Amino acid sequence: MNMSNKSTNPKGTKDYGPSELLSIRFIINKIRNVFISFGYSEIETPSIEKRATLYEKYGDEGDKFIFNIINSGEKVKKADIESLSAGKLNQFVSSISEKGLRFDLTVPLARFVAQHFNKINFPFKRFQIQKVWRSDRPQRGRFQEFTQCDVDAIGSNSILLEYEMIQIYSKVFRELGLKDVKIKINHRQILNSIANKIGISDSFNEFIVLIDKRDKIGSEKLRNLLRNDLNIKDNHIDYLSELFEYSGKFSDLINKITNEFSDALSIKATEEINKIYEMMENSDELVEIEFDLSLARGLNYYTGIIYEVVAPDSNIGSLGGGGRYSDLTKSFGVDNLSGIGISFGLERIHLLMDEKNLFPELKVLSNDILIINFDINFINEIKNIIDGLRSHGRNVFVYPDSTKVSKQFSFADKNNFNFVIIYGQEEKDGDNIKIRLMDNGEERLFKLKNFIQEFSKM
Amino acid sequence: MNMSNKSTNPKGTKDYGPSELLSIRFIINKIRNVFISFGYSEIETPSIEKRATLYEKYGDEGDKFIFNIINSGEKVKKADIESLSAGKLNQFVSSISEKGLRFDLTVPLARFVAQHFNKINFPFKRFQIQKVWRSDRPQRGRFQEFTQCDVDAIGSNSILLEYEMIQIYSKVFRELGLKDVKIKINHRQILNSIANKIGISDSFNEFIVLIDKRDKIGSEKLRNLLRNDLNIKDNHIDYLSELFEYSGKFSDLINKITNEFSDALSIKATEEINKIYEMMENSDELVEIEFDLSLARGLNYYTGIIYEVVAPDSNIGSLGGGGRYSDLTKSFGVDNLSGIGISFGLERIHLLMDEKNLFPELKVLSNDILIINFDINFINEIKNIIDGLRSHGRNVFVYPDSTKVSKQFSFADKNNFNFVIIYGQEEKDGDNIKIRLMDNGEERLFKLKNFIQEFSKM
Repeated sequence: MNMSNKSTNPKGTKDYGPSELLSIRFIINKIRNVFISFGYSEIETPSIEKRATLYEKYGDEGDKFIFNIINSGEKVKKADIESLSAGKLNQFVSSISEKGLRFDLTVPLARFVAQHFNKINFPFKRFQIQKVWRSDRPQRGRFQEFTQCDVDAIGSNSILLEYEMIQIYSKVFRELGLKDVKIKINHRQILNSIANKIGISDSFNEFIVLIDKRDKIGSEKLRNLLRNDLNIKDNHIDYLSELFEYSGKFSDLINKITNEFSDALSIKATEEINKIYEMMENSDELVEIEFDLSLARGLNYYTGIIYEVVAPDSNIGSLGGGGRYSDLTKSFGVDNLSGIGISFGLERIHLLMDEKNLFPELKVLSNDILIINFDINFINEIKNIIDGLRSHGRNVFVYPDSTKVSKQFSFADKNNFNFVIIYGQEEKDGDNIKIRLMDNGEERLFKLKNFIQEFSKM
Repeated sequence: MNMSNKSTNPKGTKDYGPSELLSIRFIINKIRNVFISFGYSEIETPSIEKRATLYEKYGDEGDKFIFNIINSGEKVKKADIESLSAGKLNQFVSSISEKGLRFDLTVPLARFVAQHFNKINFPFKRFQIQKVWRSDRPQRGRFQEFTQCDVDAIGSNSILLEYEMIQIYSKVFRELGLKDVKIKINHRQILNSIANKIGISDSFNEFIVLIDKRDKIGSEKLRNLLRNDLNIKDNHIDYLSELFEYSGKFSDLINKITNEFSDALSIKATEEINKIYEMMENSDELVEIEFDLSLARGLNYYTGIIYEVVAPDSNIGSLGGGGRYSDLTKSFGVDNLSGIGISFGLERIHLLMDEKNLFPELKVLSNDILIINFDINFINEIKNIIDGLRSHGRNVFVYPDSTKVSKQFSFADKNNFNFVIIYGQEEKDGDNIKIRLMDNGEERLFKLKNFIQEFSKM
């Protein structure tokens, strides 16, 4: 083998062989079935979106992560070289790129809803399980190509949906055996009121982006950033730290907030949180919920409740997140359409379940029956039996070459086949067909003519 | 609604709403099940591949179709502006792009096999159903983002596989109700011998590319191209036309070829074709097979039998193609690994089946039971019933808002729900729950406490 020009898959991407793909599908099926059981319908949108659809949705920070596709053929001649030499890289890129890969499923959903608005019956409960791409630095649990499983309800403000999202998260993670995950929740309006109180409402988006980094950089570095970047005074920073690190009873925290913020929007926010907690009572099938005032979610379209799921005993990062957005489709020309949605990070859940050995034994379906190849003519003679087995729902792998029988058996063994069918000269002479049960090595002889009938009874 | 900045999906891509996605999945499931029944195992590879993996696999013609991804961040500063001004567009693009979107699943398979060579048990029978991207001009049945369903066997030269591919094509198309499709087959070696005979073996790849265009441009234009581009003499062009337009008995054609080409490779090729036809005898479950000497398949990695599937009564283009390649992994550093594979074009099959009304009635699963929302408190009171229905495998859509009941019923109607559950003041007062069967409008009253039990009997 000449290894000189061996190529590999790009960093931050993954190949899935048959067994690993089974475990991925195991998770997807659980998630899909839960989504469907809550009345959500599946859609799919293209991986590629127009530049106008993707850009300026999450601020500059977000735009950086977009994979841009170079225009084909002669169009690259329009490259804006002046922008390049002036260091205006974004402008240069936009001169040679009209399309990019989607970085999430929420922006494509907003585009889909606006584009097909007249054909959709609202409230529109949709889910979508597809790949997304981000040119983020690859590391464990962070991929450049990964799969999001998104469930969203568009066209309703009902708090029932805030509760439903908690139910969906709980049901999925319990069914996957990850019942120890914790859903952190917060409310953007309360973060707003806090920002108002300490006089930084003009820099709210920057404030959110900084808080969002707290898990990664730690409290001390966050204090420095808040001080240096946003000019927040020390007493206010102390006040924020107290809120962020609160770990007492939920009701105490809610009382504290209710007392401190008396504006209409804050009152509405605490009422919403109280209502959610009320609905959660007597629901013993939920995972742990934690009210966490330091939860920010970096994206600037959220306007209400926000969620994030973490696995307390793992450093794998968040397993999912989401929240209420009151006007996501606005940038696509449709106003006043409130929505709420959550996402599951498939690859991270896969990593975590693998770490915890949570997968049941998953069998590659195709490796059911192997036909030993003594010679092409023997295969030809039992052609109808092979067809018949397939018609009876069995999966049959005809070994293509008449190599050494021991090699063929070893192949069947390595690939975990259930049965091996033996039809050579000896069997032919006796009008027989022989079968070996691979789990115990037992062999049985059948008459050719009633083989399928007898075999289906096994 | 402000339509000013409404965005749409890019040309050559498609959005799939819930019903359309069901019909796509219907096809995928049929194809997947046939692949599995023949012993093939599924893998998945990333959408993104390195430039070195993608380029120079199908000649310049192929490279043109690749969607290139611009390197992120500061890396675009390395743009080779001199190449741009010198019109060397390919070189310019390569200075700012290290990755691209795959244009088929065969090249990623070759990369996968070479990369994971030591972990794979050969013969490796794999299938893969994933998206591919080509910057081709979009038109009916030709997309820029589309799905290929590929099945390949790597590491065996056995002619059994040539036959197996015909079986797989036949079984899939018959199961989809497209039993009138025709599989055209040819052998690259015979095309080679023909090229030798008329003295153009040095331009074999160009010859193949031209013949491949015959279906699109017609025989007359092909004659002109053969004359002008390859300097083929008129008597040879007449000879080619005769072969290409042959429509007599299969055995006559094979005899003609056997008589005309006596080199070892041609003899082997005709023997292979004869062997395949022999195996096809007494197989009444196959679709029509036609030996067509004008079938070329544009890709230059094929070395043996080639296939193409057409729907005779449609102008939708080929529904799939494939063939034997003796050394696909060579460019990835693994020599002498013969393979064979075929592909199904999902979107074209979908278009054709839609045209012919071949889909059974497909029901959006999530639209099973709708709960009328009289008020959040009523919903809360039957929370356990809703959970219980879901645990019993039912799909329950809680209408999120307590809007007019008639509006909620009309929603259930439009979305084709099976049942509507009514629980308002009247039902509450009587400890009842009411259900409406949406197909006939009939209503039934149940006692709350044994509702789930009674309902599951319905």
